[in-house]
Amino acid sequence: MKAWKKNIRKVEPYIPGEQPNQSDMIKLNTNENPYPPAPGVQKVLNEFKTDTLRLYPDPTSKELIQAIADFYQVEKEQVFVGVGSDDVLAMAFMTFFNSEDPILFPDITYSFYDVWADLLHIPYECQPLDENFHIVKEHYYKKNGGIIFPNPNAPTAIYENKQFVEDILQNNQDSIVIIDEAYVDFASEGSVLPLLEKYENLLVVQTFSKSRSMAGMRIGFAIGSKRLIQAMSDVRNSFNSYTMSKLALSLGTAAVKDKKYFETCINRIVSTREKTKSQLKELGFSCLDSQANFIFATHNKKPAKEIFEALKERHIYVRYFEKPRINNYLRITIGTNEQMEMFIQALREIVK
Amino acid sequence: MKAWKKNIRKVEPYIPGEQPNQSDMIKLNTNENPYPPAPGVQKVLNEFKTDTLRLYPDPTSKELIQAIADFYQVEKEQVFVGVGSDDVLAMAFMTFFNSEDPILFPDITYSFYDVWADLLHIPYECQPLDENFHIVKEHYYKKNGGIIFPNPNAPTAIYENKQFVEDILQNNQDSIVIIDEAYVDFASEGSVLPLLEKYENLLVVQTFSKSRSMAGMRIGFAIGSKRLIQAMSDVRNSFNSYTMSKLALSLGTAAVKDKKYFETCINRIVSTREKTKSQLKELGFSCLDSQANFIFATHNKKPAKEIFEALKERHIYVRYFEKPRINNYLRITIGTNEQMEMFIQALREIVK
Repeated sequence: MKAWKKNIRKVEPYIPGEQPNQSDMIKLNTNENPYPPAPGVQKVLNEFKTDTLRLYPDPTSKELIQAIADFYQVEKEQVFVGVGSDDVLAMAFMTFFNSEDPILFPDITYSFYDVWADLLHIPYECQPLDENFHIVKEHYYKKNGGIIFPNPNAPTAIYENKQFVEDILQNNQDSIVIIDEAYVDFASEGSVLPLLEKYENLLVVQTFSKSRSMAGMRIGFAIGSKRLIQAMSDVRNSFNSYTMSKLALSLGTAAVKDKKYFETCINRIVSTREKTKSQLKELGFSCLDSQANFIFATHNKKPAKEIFEALKERHIYVRYFEKPRINNYLRITIGTNEQMEMFIQALREIVK
Repeated sequence: MKAWKKNIRKVEPYIPGEQPNQSDMIKLNTNENPYPPAPGVQKVLNEFKTDTLRLYPDPTSKELIQAIADFYQVEKEQVFVGVGSDDVLAMAFMTFFNSEDPILFPDITYSFYDVWADLLHIPYECQPLDENFHIVKEHYYKKNGGIIFPNPNAPTAIYENKQFVEDILQNNQDSIVIIDEAYVDFASEGSVLPLLEKYENLLVVQTFSKSRSMAGMRIGFAIGSKRLIQAMSDVRNSFNSYTMSKLALSLGTAAVKDKKYFETCINRIVSTREKTKSQLKELGFSCLDSQANFIFATHNKKPAKEIFEALKERHIYVRYFEKPRINNYLRITIGTNEQMEMFIQALREIVK
């Protein structure tokens, strides 16, 4: 082996989920929104002059940060933006998880947490979900170097209420606690943002990829105390001062400004979700109590993997995880009513 | 101090250069291209449907990578793309600089290298430029954990030829050597890409921000052996699987496909640069031998800082570095002929 090869960082390469691209497919596998972004996004794009791309974007992302701050009624110094919530979370791991004590997160959760911890040499300890796939808050009361979990959790779609999160915060005044709220806009009780008034060590991370239909644009954000946001900005500026393109800033701002469209889309998805849950039940599925834009379901007879494969043959894509405890479940993104009808029709044939 | 504060990563925050925004300004301070991106970029934007933004972008960036591979006549497995060359370089530091021996780079150079090294806890040793601001290749023949320098160097604009780079490679078969070619398209002898055939440990990094007029879009790339590119992709995928937005992929591809426009812009900038150099000389400036889209110049009487301030009063922005050895120099980006005439006219008044 050549000497230089030993200095290459060894990572277990993360394999991103399948991104099939067939014209007739029904794509319910990566939790995208079935509806387009707010109409204002196309309008801003139509007026955009590419001549301006010769110049660097605003490194402070002022316009987008102000729009997010206005929407959530926080101060602009409490908002951090990044290239999707993955970028925001990776920066948060790098900024906040520098203890020798392990960070804590659930064993069944977003599959990037252990990847970031490995990459950044952060010690971690996974805490098992209970038999109903709920997080056990008492597991998070021990000494730790930080805490992170998604709420609703992925891929279970289970939401823990604000009191639950506050209990964890009260027992962790010495740790930074990150709540990854990628799916929170689909949860009835909503975000833990109000807890920011009481906890300077709380960081809330959200994304434009789900409820705002902008997965293709790569915009995520964090809201926290000024102290936490300043620390993240310092690290970000030491990594890359210009992460947000001029188009991400302009189109993202247009998206966040249309509150009515945002709420309409969410209501439609939640209503389709509830309908789909009843239909799945009639077909012999059990669904966890979903508070996200996807459902985590298992069938009482047919193995999940077989259903997954049979759907795929019909060009209907859902997500299947070959992992202990969840390898008989399917994660099904909520599409349009029409897509879900076709999906249910296909299931009728598959599980009959 | 609250206990969680001690786990926050301490960094010397990098302060990005000033981004003034006045309608009448002449902006010659951040090495942007004075000409717009290729006409095909606006065309692709005009046809872009924001409805598609609801879906994730292609995580393999296939279209853009293939266009770059075709342009440089390399294989697609030899190309890595990122959010500007800063993102590409940060990923390269993280992927390749994991030795306990220090990495080596010049003392006067791109100001991000030591920031990344500090952030990622990489040991480093700066090597002094000689009295004419040239890199001394023999400084790079000692034991090291990797080598990086820009060519042309920044902010000097001085270019070292291919034989010089090859000498460093021949003396460093055990290290990964990164040549940061952000400005190479403006250098007469061009890129060291042909050396890739002989050196598997060479990584060449370039950007769309300068010669391709796309600073606002955030696109950079690396070309190297398949072994190096695979390692970078593995780390990148462990950090963020979707760094490139759909618009970055589409607009970037349109930009790289127009070779004729690219060459025309470069020729215009080089010709303006040479003219500006003669004019500066007549006004009592000495310029280093610039092979970039900027000039590094010092005046025989008037201190650089005074000239910088006087230009600023006239809304003409150039770059001044308050650093040892270079604190009597100005870095002047090459604008259009018209802008440079106005700049020279202002200087005539200032240094008279």
